[in-house]
Parts: sequence; structure tokens; C-alpha cells
Amino acid sequence: MAKIIDPWGSKLVEDYAKLITDFHLEQFMLDKFPSPNRIMRRGVVFSGIGQKTLLDAMKNKKPFYVLSGIMPTADKIHFGNKMVVENIAYFQKFGAETYILIADLEAEATRGISLEEARKRALNFHIPAYIALGLDPEKTTFYFQSENVEVMRSASLFARKVTLNQFKALYGNAEPGRIFAACTQVGDILYPQFKKRMPGVIPVGVDQVPHILLTRDIVNRMKSRNFVLPSSIFHKYTPSLDGSIKMSKSKPESCIELPEDEKSVCKKIKRALTGGRDTLEEHRRLGAIIEKDMVFELLKQHLIEDDSELQRIHDEYKAGRMTSGEIKEIACQKMVEFMQNFNKKVREAKKLVPNLKFVK
Amino acid sequence: MAKIIDPWGSKLVEDYAKLITDFHLEQFMLDKFPSPNRIMRRGVVFSGIGQKTLLDAMKNKKPFYVLSGIMPTADKIHFGNKMVVENIAYFQKFGAETYILIADLEAEATRGISLEEARKRALNFHIPAYIALGLDPEKTTFYFQSENVEVMRSASLFARKVTLNQFKALYGNAEPGRIFAACTQVGDILYPQFKKRMPGVIPVGVDQVPHILLTRDIVNRMKSRNFVLPSSIFHKYTPSLDGSIKMSKSKPESCIELPEDEKSVCKKIKRALTGGRDTLEEHRRLGAIIEKDMVFELLKQHLIEDDSELQRIHDEYKAGRMTSGEIKEIACQKMVEFMQNFNKKVREAKKLVPNLKFVK
Repeated sequence: MAKIIDPWGSKLVEDYAKLITDFHLEQFMLDKFPSPNRIMRRGVVFSGIGQKTLLDAMKNKKPFYVLSGIMPTADKIHFGNKMVVENIAYFQKFGAETYILIADLEAEATRGISLEEARKRALNFHIPAYIALGLDPEKTTFYFQSENVEVMRSASLFARKVTLNQFKALYGNAEPGRIFAACTQVGDILYPQFKKRMPGVIPVGVDQVPHILLTRDIVNRMKSRNFVLPSSIFHKYTPSLDGSIKMSKSKPESCIELPEDEKSVCKKIKRALTGGRDTLEEHRRLGAIIEKDMVFELLKQHLIEDDSELQRIHDEYKAGRMTSGEIKEIACQKMVEFMQNFNKKVREAKKLVPNLKFVK
Repeated sequence: MAKIIDPWGSKLVEDYAKLITDFHLEQFMLDKFPSPNRIMRRGVVFSGIGQKTLLDAMKNKKPFYVLSGIMPTADKIHFGNKMVVENIAYFQKFGAETYILIADLEAEATRGISLEEARKRALNFHIPAYIALGLDPEKTTFYFQSENVEVMRSASLFARKVTLNQFKALYGNAEPGRIFAACTQVGDILYPQFKKRMPGVIPVGVDQVPHILLTRDIVNRMKSRNFVLPSSIFHKYTPSLDGSIKMSKSKPESCIELPEDEKSVCKKIKRALTGGRDTLEEHRRLGAIIEKDMVFELLKQHLIEDDSELQRIHDEYKAGRMTSGEIKEIACQKMVEFMQNFNKKVREAKKLVPNLKFVK
């Protein structure tokens, strides 16, 4: 397992389908979720666990929560964060009580960022960025890990419920620092239930699957606490512009971050791997190999909301009537618009920060 | 290492001398410590680490601290606790800033005792018992682990500085719950230095040696934090009345607890392993084998303060002029006095609890 998915690394997931089998996950139940969002409709959200519990709560308008964490290590975020926020916003629309934690303890432990610095970054950029991407701050409770005594306390309790071997099987690696971080995350995931037993959904990228499985396992071993097993939905990575499975800062020329300036963004898109043919003649004749096209993937995952617009571009490109140059031009334009819009919204969202609801 | 010493179990320490070699510990520097207390003089405190740093601070009247923890799992304490308190009281006399933490998080995680219950026990019995045994409460700062955010925060940071293999080498066992408890203890041990860099001494029984070594190792890996390496002194176990190396609740007939009623105490002493000979005639002729005598050991470690009185009994017994029956009679009397005195002091100390200095 751990060779495939490592929540602290960026290893390849060779085969998302295999992942579902190996981890005993569920297919994402697209037809069951009301008004699925773009990444759900497009197959980017591809899997989940405990979806029935979640769907029951949504359907019967019972209380449930959605939770996610912000790791304020940089002054930028990536497309994985964007997808998480879009999924949070989706569940907020259906009444989810929303919790966003700032993982300042983990930022300090893993990257040596002081708690003060982490706090500053979260308030000045990360939280506004989440609001810019669709988080409804009025429906959200925020907290800093380092201030949440209940989460810190519970972590030591949860640690007692997992064996070292189990940890190794799940994570591949069981260094003490990671054990601490993981058990603290279990505390975070269950925190909304400390006061009120209820279903919850943790939307994450596939690299975070082990945390969800660990939490569910611990819940199963603590029957006396009577937690509801938390549910989760999993999204694929946004692929790197060079065709590898995940955008990564280690290859900056193939990785777009939020925010990033217009020139840089368009330059990267122009150099991206496409499904265009070697010559124009060939392209017109055979059409694009869309599955290989990282620019089309960007349009599909992030830049085009309207399904029929995407379908039209897909068909034109596949038929060879549109060239990869034209696709890149569209992507560049849309990305520039997106960045402008994002930056503007971040600026506006900063004004909301003093009024956010923080708990300790 | 871990086969010999296990801070969570009660394994035998076959040979205290070997321990010093194996762990690279120091002999206790009896001739360097001013006015050594009874257990120091009698060789019960037999080893230490970083003693020079500690002695320098004491000699030059520089600030230093003494720290210990209370695990409020039962309504009784044992002789190991008594020795720790005697050593704390010793350092208090030489000006040590004193910290006593209540390990309620660990009590909850390891024994399922709720934080509320742990708090109640600590306030109603353990802290008064420590005061009864010599702790000066006016010179002492107390805290509950579960309320000390700084300790909880630091634990996750310290966890990053130790590898799983190192942990295994030190403790033999590296289950996640133990890793949590140990890293929290590192936080406790260094807590007094979070605000002020200074030497400190942690007086412990030999079973706690790994915690001290872990802490010193982590300090060495965190040069940037500029902690002074904490010092420690180590005491032997109080042997079980049946002759095995450590009194243990698993053999209640050979284990005296504090408090324990007079009848029960004297009954146990009467059944104890002695160094008396098979017949009175033989005893008078050969004298007692004092090294084997658990009752004399009780007198030596705990019940007779005055060195010349102890020497007199030793000589008489060794020469066969006193019988093991007489030794037992003395021990029984002294123990009853001790228990009466202890109970009375605990009752008095309870009145002081509302005025103790707690920090969070």
C-alpha cells in the first residue's frame, strides 16, 4: 500500500482503479450525490468510503460535518487544495457544519515554520485563498492545531489504539514524527464529534487515504466513544504538465501554483505535453490523442465549468479541427482570467479575516 | 538495553553495575554532593548522568530546577515515589526551582482513567502524599499535562528528532502509544527551560533511565533551541520482601504500599525473606547474612534515618547477637510509626491544596 500512496511524499499512483481494490475503497457514487460539482462530474472525484452514511445524512437533512486542514508552509497553494475547497463548498451547500483547521503544529514539526509565522501565513493568505476558491466563511469554524487542547489531548489516546505494525502497513514508514502527525490528524478528523455524534465527510486527495483509514480503524477500536465512522471522498491528482501523474514543486516548469503570474503560467502551458500530432496534416487527419493531453486535462479539471463547452472543445480537438496550439491558447486565456479573479477575490477575502469564527 | 530496563514494566535489573556500563552512565558522585541524604549515603542512589553540570549550578548558586511527575493511577504510592520525593526535597534545600507535573494524559491513555478522575486523585491524595514525604509546596510549581499546551505542542516537535530505530534501541518497544508518552515526557523534562535556559535534575528510579537518555539525545539534536542537557540521579528499586529485585503490586504479599494499614504491614514483614540462620544456635554462631535480608534492607533504605543507629543494628545482627525476629520487630514498629506519621501529614497537607501554585 504505502509504496503507492504516501501522504508525506508525492509518489505515483499508477492505477487509480487498482487503488480502490487494494484499499477496499468504494467507487464514487456519482449518481447518488445531488447536483454533483465539476470535479465529481468529470471523474476527478473517483472514489470514497462510507458514502452511504454521508448520503443518508444529506438526504434526511440530519446534521453532518465537512472538515479539512490547511498546512501553511508556503505562500502559495496548489490545485489539490483547490479541489478540496470545491468539495467543501459543495457540502456546505447541503448544510454541512464546516471545520477548517490550521495545521501549524505539523508545519512547525515538518518544515520548521514557527507557530507565529504559520499563523500569519494562514490569516494573510491561506484562509483568504480558501474563501476565494468558494469556502463560505460564515458557515465555517476555524482553529489552530496548536491551540486546540482537546485535539492534542485526544491524539495521545488515539495513539494507544494503533499498533506499530498496523501503522507500517498503512504508511510504509512509522517514524515517531509521522506517528505524532497522523494521530493528531485523527484527533482533527474526529474533533467535530467530541461534542456531537454525527456523520462527517473529509474530502481529500488520494495521498491522504491512509489518514482516513487509520481514523476509521481507531473508531472501530473505540466502541465506547461511539463515534460515527467518518466518510470520505477521494480526488485524483492534477497531472503535471509534462504528463506525470501529479503536479509537483520539484518540477516547477510543469507545475502551476496559485497564485502564479500570467506570463509564467502561459509559458508553462505552451511547453506542456499535448496529444497533438507531429504535423498539422497528420493532426487534421487523425485528430488529437486527448488522453495524453495535459492542457485539455487542465481545461477539464479546472478551467471550464460548462459541460457542453468542454464537450464541444473535446469533439473539435479529437476530430483534428482544433490544434493543440488553439487548445493552449484557450487554456492560457482561461488561466489568466482565473488567476486575475483569484487574486481579486483573495484581496477581498482578506477583509473578512477579522470576523472569522475561531475556536480553541 | 531494553531487556533490562523498561519504564513501563517491572523487569529485573540483574546487576546495577552492568547497567552503568551498558548505558554509559556515571557512578553517583557521593563525595561531591553536599550533605547527602539517607538514600544517597546508603548507596540507594547509585548512578547519575550530567552530574557535573548540576553540581556546578549548586556550588555557584546558579538557577537550576528539579522536576518530577505524578501518575495518579491508584490511591496509593510506592517506595519508589518516596525516594523521588526525598531527592526532590534534597535539591529544594539547595535552591532548586521545583516542578511537579500530573501525568493525567498518560494515566488516561495507559489506564483509562478519565482526566477528571486523575485530577481528583492527584489533588486528594498524591500531592498531599508528596508534601507528607517532604516536598515543600511553597517552592513548587504544579501543572496537569492535559492543561499544559506548551508541553503538548513541543512533544510533536521532539518526536521529529528521534528515529524509530533509536526508539527501539532505547525502549525495546516502539508502539505508537509509548512513543507519544515518551515524547510528552521529553516535553515535561524540558518545560522549565522553555522560558529560562538552566540546568535541571530529574531524580528517577532506574526504570526511567531511557526517558532521560532520550531527552538528552533530543537536546543534542536541537542545538538551535540551546537547552542545557538535563542531569539526573538514579536510585535502585526497593526490593520485594521475598528477595526479588523490586516491590511489585503483582506480588501483594511482598509489597508494602503507602498508605497501608498496620496489621497488614507487620504481617508482611513477618513473612519476609531474612538473612537469619536455620536455628538459633547456628545464628548465634555464624551471624546473619545481611545482604540477603529484606527486612534489614527496609531499615536501611527507609526506616532508620540515623547512620549510627543503623550501624549498631547491622553489627549486632551480623554478629548473631540480634535475631531476625528482633529485626522484624524493629521494622514493624518503625513502619507502623512511619504509616501513622504519613497518614497524619497527608491529612494536614490536604489543607494546603487550595493554595498550591498551578500553571497552565
